[in-house]
Amino acid sequence: MVKILWNDRIINEEDVKIGFEDRGYQFGDGVYEVIKIYNGDVFTATEHIDRLYESADKIQLVIPYTKDVLHKMLYELIELNEVKNGQIYLQVTRGTSPRQHNFPTPAVESVLTAYTKETNRPLSQLQTGVKACFVEDMRWLRCDIKSLNLLGNVLAKQEAVSKDCFEAILHRGEVITEGSSSNMYGIKNGVLYTHPANNLILNGITRRVIFACCEEIGMPVVEEAFTKQQALEMDEFIMSSTSAEVMPIVSIDDQMIGSGTRGQWTEKLQQAFEKKIPVSVGI
Amino acid sequence: MVKILWNDRIINEEDVKIGFEDRGYQFGDGVYEVIKIYNGDVFTATEHIDRLYESADKIQLVIPYTKDVLHKMLYELIELNEVKNGQIYLQVTRGTSPRQHNFPTPAVESVLTAYTKETNRPLSQLQTGVKACFVEDMRWLRCDIKSLNLLGNVLAKQEAVSKDCFEAILHRGEVITEGSSSNMYGIKNGVLYTHPANNLILNGITRRVIFACCEEIGMPVVEEAFTKQQALEMDEFIMSSTSAEVMPIVSIDDQMIGSGTRGQWTEKLQQAFEKKIPVSVGI
Repeated sequence: MVKILWNDRIINEEDVKIGFEDRGYQFGDGVYEVIKIYNGDVFTATEHIDRLYESADKIQLVIPYTKDVLHKMLYELIELNEVKNGQIYLQVTRGTSPRQHNFPTPAVESVLTAYTKETNRPLSQLQTGVKACFVEDMRWLRCDIKSLNLLGNVLAKQEAVSKDCFEAILHRGEVITEGSSSNMYGIKNGVLYTHPANNLILNGITRRVIFACCEEIGMPVVEEAFTKQQALEMDEFIMSSTSAEVMPIVSIDDQMIGSGTRGQWTEKLQQAFEKKIPVSVGI
Repeated sequence: MVKILWNDRIINEEDVKIGFEDRGYQFGDGVYEVIKIYNGDVFTATEHIDRLYESADKIQLVIPYTKDVLHKMLYELIELNEVKNGQIYLQVTRGTSPRQHNFPTPAVESVLTAYTKETNRPLSQLQTGVKACFVEDMRWLRCDIKSLNLLGNVLAKQEAVSKDCFEAILHRGEVITEGSSSNMYGIKNGVLYTHPANNLILNGITRRVIFACCEEIGMPVVEEAFTKQQALEMDEFIMSSTSAEVMPIVSIDDQMIGSGTRGQWTEKLQQAFEKKIPVSVGI
């Protein structure tokens, strides 16, 4: 029986009760994280939990547990569900209260939901690379918050999938921001370029791991926005996310990037990334 | 016992079961409407239901009932709950499915939830007017869709309430768009100005009723964006919504608009509006 962490209790799936006036359901008024599990161990869990609290703080949502308590509850859930390789999804909403836009007064208890699932690493795609396409970035101006307001991301991803692409590369006007659920990077002459971590993108945890990897392999990082045209002229192109890891993008809008295969810098980055995950399983 | 319309069944509140993988809960992937009930009768229900289907269409969400069937189910709900004056809230999400950004394949059944509540008209405020404040519009670029992605609206309304204001007047740069859950209008020299109905605002049903009222009272309407500065220099200022009806705004950021009381054009508009609601109860 699959177990769910619901607030501070681990219970059976069918016992979870989400109210239709949960503010997560009516306003998307909440924040979330996805954490990868490698060999039964969570990867960069501290960073993800820190970011969850930062996102909550940015929308003035109070999570009524310490980070340590949450961390322990997540571990317990993974152990109970005996997840070896997969991920944990967790979200916290501002709670259930008669519908009104402003926060409930007095405040109500937040609603936390976390569950695990088994997933496989995208090993084949990490080698061959994936196709992407450009999609206009229509999202709000606080993309630095990992909130439940994801309809813009959903529609972008759907457009990508309908074009037989793995991911949408979002752009505001001519400028590339990030992916629908990933960060984006171009490599040119051995330098990695990516959008600065401001209000227009989510500062990915994998993005931060990649920066550390860049330092290890001696590749300079420039946090500077670049255009669609510049993207097409990169030697190599990468997307990153908790699930997709360091994923080569080999074509954009059916135009080949570089040689149209995984590049040498990408491969070096993947190798450096690989060394950081709990137990290396090889690409 | 309060009854809820859940999909095509009217059931007891405690029997509603929202999945934690409902896409409404994880992505805000759905659309909604709020319809006013005056004397047991729904007001402009056809317009609201039409807009629900338009919003759904814009996000490629299929509502599996005809408009007529939905209309009848809503009436049945109101009758069962014996609501005299109040409102009906209804939302439709893309359904419950293992979490992925792109639409579920194959598609799953959408989830409809509708419920009623008794509310009173804001009669006193319609006479005295309310205070508002400027808040930067951070929302996405598809505000024409009445979607469940409302965190930007929530945060704006909360900022207004924290400043002891009734509503936030949103602006992109210097340009006024709309309110956090309302449309905004300025009146200058007997002409009503309001933002055009494009992707930056929701084309309110009450907004459309107001346009009809303007025609009746001989007030020209100009659908043209205006600035914060121009807003402060208006003779009269109004917000409108299903709940707030034709609401005078008498100050913005503590600066008095016109005489600082409900103006003559506003009163005329309110009288014209009053005649349209199912049974006039007098302001």
